[in-house]
Amino acid sequence: MIIVMRADATEENIAAVRARLEALGLRVHVSRGEARTILGLIGDRSALRDQAIDRMPGVEKAIPVMQPFKLVNREFHPEDTVVELDGVRIGAEQLVIMAGPCSVENRDTLLEIAAAVKGAGATVLRGGAFKPRTSPYSFQGLGEEGLRYLAEARERTGLLVVTELMDPRDMRLVAKYSDIIQIGARNMQNFRLLTEVGNQPKPVLLKRGMSATIEEWLMSAEYVMSRGNPSVILCERGIRTFETYTRNTLDLSAIPVVKRYSHLPIIVDPSHGLGHWEYVETMSKAAVVAGADGLIIEVHPRPEEALSDGAQSLKPERFEALMRDLAPIASLVNRRL
Amino acid sequence: MIIVMRADATEENIAAVRARLEALGLRVHVSRGEARTILGLIGDRSALRDQAIDRMPGVEKAIPVMQPFKLVNREFHPEDTVVELDGVRIGAEQLVIMAGPCSVENRDTLLEIAAAVKGAGATVLRGGAFKPRTSPYSFQGLGEEGLRYLAEARERTGLLVVTELMDPRDMRLVAKYSDIIQIGARNMQNFRLLTEVGNQPKPVLLKRGMSATIEEWLMSAEYVMSRGNPSVILCERGIRTFETYTRNTLDLSAIPVVKRYSHLPIIVDPSHGLGHWEYVETMSKAAVVAGADGLIIEVHPRPEEALSDGAQSLKPERFEALMRDLAPIASLVNRRL
Amino acid sequence: MIIVMRADATEENIAAVRARLEALGLRVHVSRGEARTILGLIGDRSALRDQAIDRMPGVEKAIPVMQPFKLVNREFHPEDTVVELDGVRIGAEQLVIMAGPCSVENRDTLLEIAAAVKGAGATVLRGGAFKPRTSPYSFQGLGEEGLRYLAEARERTGLLVVTELMDPRDMRLVAKYSDIIQIGARNMQNFRLLTEVGNQPKPVLLKRGMSATIEEWLMSAEYVMSRGNPSVILCERGIRTFETYTRNTLDLSAIPVVKRYSHLPIIVDPSHGLGHWEYVETMSKAAVVAGADGLIIEVHPRPEEALSDGAQSLKPERFEALMRDLAPIASLVNRRL
Amino acid sequence: MIIVMRADATEENIAAVRARLEALGLRVHVSRGEARTILGLIGDRSALRDQAIDRMPGVEKAIPVMQPFKLVNREFHPEDTVVELDGVRIGAEQLVIMAGPCSVENRDTLLEIAAAVKGAGATVLRGGAFKPRTSPYSFQGLGEEGLRYLAEARERTGLLVVTELMDPRDMRLVAKYSDIIQIGARNMQNFRLLTEVGNQPKPVLLKRGMSATIEEWLMSAEYVMSRGNPSVILCERGIRTFETYTRNTLDLSAIPVVKRYSHLPIIVDPSHGLGHWEYVETMSKAAVVAGADGLIIEVHPRPEEALSDGAQSLKPERFEALMRDLAPIASLVNRRL
Repeated sequence: MIIVMRADATEENIAAVRARLEALGLRVHVSRGEARTILGLIGDRSALRDQAIDRMPGVEKAIPVMQPFKLVNREFHPEDTVVELDGVRIGAEQLVIMAGPCSVENRDTLLEIAAAVKGAGATVLRGGAFKPRTSPYSFQGLGEEGLRYLAEARERTGLLVVTELMDPRDMRLVAKYSDIIQIGARNMQNFRLLTEVGNQPKPVLLKRGMSATIEEWLMSAEYVMSRGNPSVILCERGIRTFETYTRNTLDLSAIPVVKRYSHLPIIVDPSHGLGHWEYVETMSKAAVVAGADGLIIEVHPRPEEALSDGAQSLKPERFEALMRDLAPIASLVNRRL
Repeated sequence: MIIVMRADATEENIAAVRARLEALGLRVHVSRGEARTILGLIGDRSALRDQAIDRMPGVEKAIPVMQPFKLVNREFHPEDTVVELDGVRIGAEQLVIMAGPCSVENRDTLLEIAAAVKGAGATVLRGGAFKPRTSPYSFQGLGEEGLRYLAEARERTGLLVVTELMDPRDMRLVAKYSDIIQIGARNMQNFRLLTEVGNQPKPVLLKRGMSATIEEWLMSAEYVMSRGNPSVILCERGIRTFETYTRNTLDLSAIPVVKRYSHLPIIVDPSHGLGHWEYVETMSKAAVVAGADGLIIEVHPRPEEALSDGAQSLKPERFEALMRDLAPIASLVNRRL
Repeated sequence: MIIVMRADATEENIAAVRARLEALGLRVHVSRGEARTILGLIGDRSALRDQAIDRMPGVEKAIPVMQPFKLVNREFHPEDTVVELDGVRIGAEQLVIMAGPCSVENRDTLLEIAAAVKGAGATVLRGGAFKPRTSPYSFQGLGEEGLRYLAEARERTGLLVVTELMDPRDMRLVAKYSDIIQIGARNMQNFRLLTEVGNQPKPVLLKRGMSATIEEWLMSAEYVMSRGNPSVILCERGIRTFETYTRNTLDLSAIPVVKRYSHLPIIVDPSHGLGHWEYVETMSKAAVVAGADGLIIEVHPRPEEALSDGAQSLKPERFEALMRDLAPIASLVNRRL
Repeated sequence: MIIVMRADATEENIAAVRARLEALGLRVHVSRGEARTILGLIGDRSALRDQAIDRMPGVEKAIPVMQPFKLVNREFHPEDTVVELDGVRIGAEQLVIMAGPCSVENRDTLLEIAAAVKGAGATVLRGGAFKPRTSPYSFQGLGEEGLRYLAEARERTGLLVVTELMDPRDMRLVAKYSDIIQIGARNMQNFRLLTEVGNQPKPVLLKRGMSATIEEWLMSAEYVMSRGNPSVILCERGIRTFETYTRNTLDLSAIPVVKRYSHLPIIVDPSHGLGHWEYVETMSKAAVVAGADGLIIEVHPRPEEALSDGAQSLKPERFEALMRDLAPIASLVNRRL
């Protein structure tokens, strides 16, 4: 942390800030410039947490020097984290492909989709039983009934299941049926929910918030890890910008940035990130080349009848074609399907 | 709703869309232009909900014509809503002033602040017992202990209490101690939480999400109202932009826009909206002139020791001066303190 | 400037950075922390300009400590700048009101508007002769013919004239007819144009770019001042956000922020900032309370026939009513019309 | 265009709007719904240009149905445009690689870089002689001297030259030395400059504005084409978001979106789009897979001494390695280097 004093700070101001910092056990270096005095702090930054140094008289601003996350930080954990479950290794050489409908709508359609995506090479089935919808009048998901269909699809196909948890009261229920617990973009800073999934052992798929910075996203992962659950998979799903030709702006550069700052695996959701199925195949390939550890893609056999997000769902035959196209691309970046 | 067909849409495509819409009970007007055919729909738009018309062959896009909210819509409820509780009327001539610390830190400081803001003319005491913090290592609030101090401060001063609910499991606990239930910006689209506060009778202070459009914000209010609770107070608290000299960009134009589209009262939080106490007084006055029904302001006697958001808190004497300055401004726009 | 070294920086890396900085004549303070070494620089920051220190081996980042602007900086020029011309003082107690059509469309309409806004109390006539339009097929302005009408309106009413310069080749032409030279939002970083208006003596109205930070905006003012022209008037006109209910998001908090960091006067354009005339009156009043030194408002007698921006223009009678309403508000913040 | 009437619009309002539209030669379809009347227009939309229909009494809004661009629109020009010059075909199977320093700094460094990038396989040399810099105190480029060095480098290497035009007065000068005329992000809506490059025959490299939508960007291309110059190459270079770990957010999804709506070639500038050389290689590969017709990359042998943008420049050996890695990736998407 660096403390920049105001141009009109007095010697008393500087001495008071210095005294307070030293009382916290920090060593302080004072640099007196022509226009500003700067205080550099040495020691455990956590001593400074919750200290409003920037409100002391004469202080212009406090500038953090280090990233605020620890457990997710690659600096303290240089090797890539690999999340393992039932033989699927997320973050390793093999890409993980999650696919399925936006919402679980009924048993037959779900089983149809599960069989199709399994056949095309997916290893995880996605599908929402609890749906966060902007409108209270929209389809809100089938709830536990949907979870049961997911479990049945898993049994029939061998696919793992990922589904969204929206409410801490549903933690046990969702964990009973799902292999991976998804935290949606709108809940990225629902800290109670993060705490809840941090207190249990199943892997967590943490979507980036609609307007979250990468730092905030990693801080949300830190919440989960700080409760004892090391199995966090990040998911880039587009951020909100002023652009209107796409639903969101898919930020593929988040992949190498995350890889630099963190050891956690990261996958990409091109369906929500773009909002139009026409762009999903191209951007899925680009995501793999950008270093994604996997993809999560919406697939629906009759998108025009889907109860949510039909516009961005691939039909099974397009999904299958995409899987075929992905294989040689993956191998070029030393990955495989 | 208007359906725009693609330039290359066939007669069969148009007929299929038309048939589907008519099967939903809608009347359809077809306009054939030089470059595009357009279908205008007449009838209950809700019939169209969850119908992915835009995914049918030949469809370019579906454009909604009406606002998606109903209960919060001024069109169907032209008079201003006034939220009343214990003699305080929010949305009426008298401005409501909510003030207090960011977090409840300890009993003595809270009682000191409560007495000060009451003396200056506030009618509602704010203070967080559950704090949504970006870092899991930051102070997370005193929990029920904090709620008890708030209740004690209410008893001593006669102030009403507003405090944040973060978890549906705390609904009863928070409602036991608080007069108004706050939904924070990060939970504006925590739909389970919205449903929970919609299912109980206490007024809800609904903060605008950090990157929420006004339409999304009103849809979140619709969630609460659709469960039966008509007492929603909106709170503008700044949106995220690329600007860095302020913490957020306080969007005062949201006030007249909300007043146009909705009948709900709206107050302004200049403390979070700006992030620097130096700007709070000026922008509080501007907010009142822009039509705000009230303000929610952070006050702390020793901001440099505050456990959260010290940089944006006013000292009690500045708050008192602001209250004095506000009175003549309020009367110019036909309001009073 | 502070240089933060990487965790894995070697002693050689640190020594090399230090040597380079000292060779530039800077004194360097080295703070060795547990996880990072930090170098604080003392001396003239301009020595560092155009030095890519952050690209040297072992450097994590370079953090500037001071604002990059000098001539516009209040720190070095504490008194407010007042731009004077022909008895109008912009930035002083009296608010400056600029009003007129978006574009000059024809002689008669312009003279009609000029008489109306003069009668209502405006002191400056606005009107575009050169129009920056998103579409090449839209009305591009009358050019010199429009400038002549503006000059005629000035002669008849005594109003000063402000009009936009889009092309450095038109500098003399525009300066011949106009009292204040406007630089539009789209040209805020057209540095050649800024240089051109900096090389001549007429005051410059510098609009904030659509997505410009306040710092970038002040740097553009610095361009003008650095060429020798001290008469810069800033104009907030809304920034681009994801909000769609308004054309832009009018950032009134920019007023107190600019007043803190700079001595230059600042006015507000609520017409472009909002895009809907319904909100212009309310937000004009709020702008005055927020500390604006003036307003620039679009006025048109028949907005439904305007060749540009009809939706945001006030009719003369509404403008006149606004002027009446503004007077008592202005006096409350120690300003007058 | 669709006109949506307000709920309280009268029959007179509707009749007046209808009459005005029909007077413009448009056919009007009226759809009367339960809550709104809608008017659909048939005929040449250009008749509506500059008509403020949305300001007529009773009108709620006017919604455009078609894209506002024509000459750049793929709908009216289905085949890909290939820009050809001296044997280089931009937009065809072979990717075009432009590389060089951010600024031309001196003759020797430029010739050194030119030789290196030529050797690695680039076909176009980039380098700024006129530099748009945020600060008036930063290096502004060598001007004509820089242009001469570029021409000399071309002569020695056979590379084509692309360099930025900032001022219409430099049009002839820049065209004398440069093969492709670059319009920078800050000038994307400098309409006079667009007109100038539209009036001459050399190909134009049009960078996307920092906060431009794709529609606005295509409208700027329309400006150039509408003056008679069909040779426009679009360049995605990142947009401004709230993210701070990268300089801009590189929007690779703009590539398939542009390809859908327009026939113009599009290349990607990962150097400006990311701001950190560490991410340039990965994102260059992803850009090719996303369908880019080429890349423009900053290369500097001693980035730590570069006078601008050192942090984002690749060293020649990294650039060469990237070129080698790109070849097999390109061939997978049916392109070649």
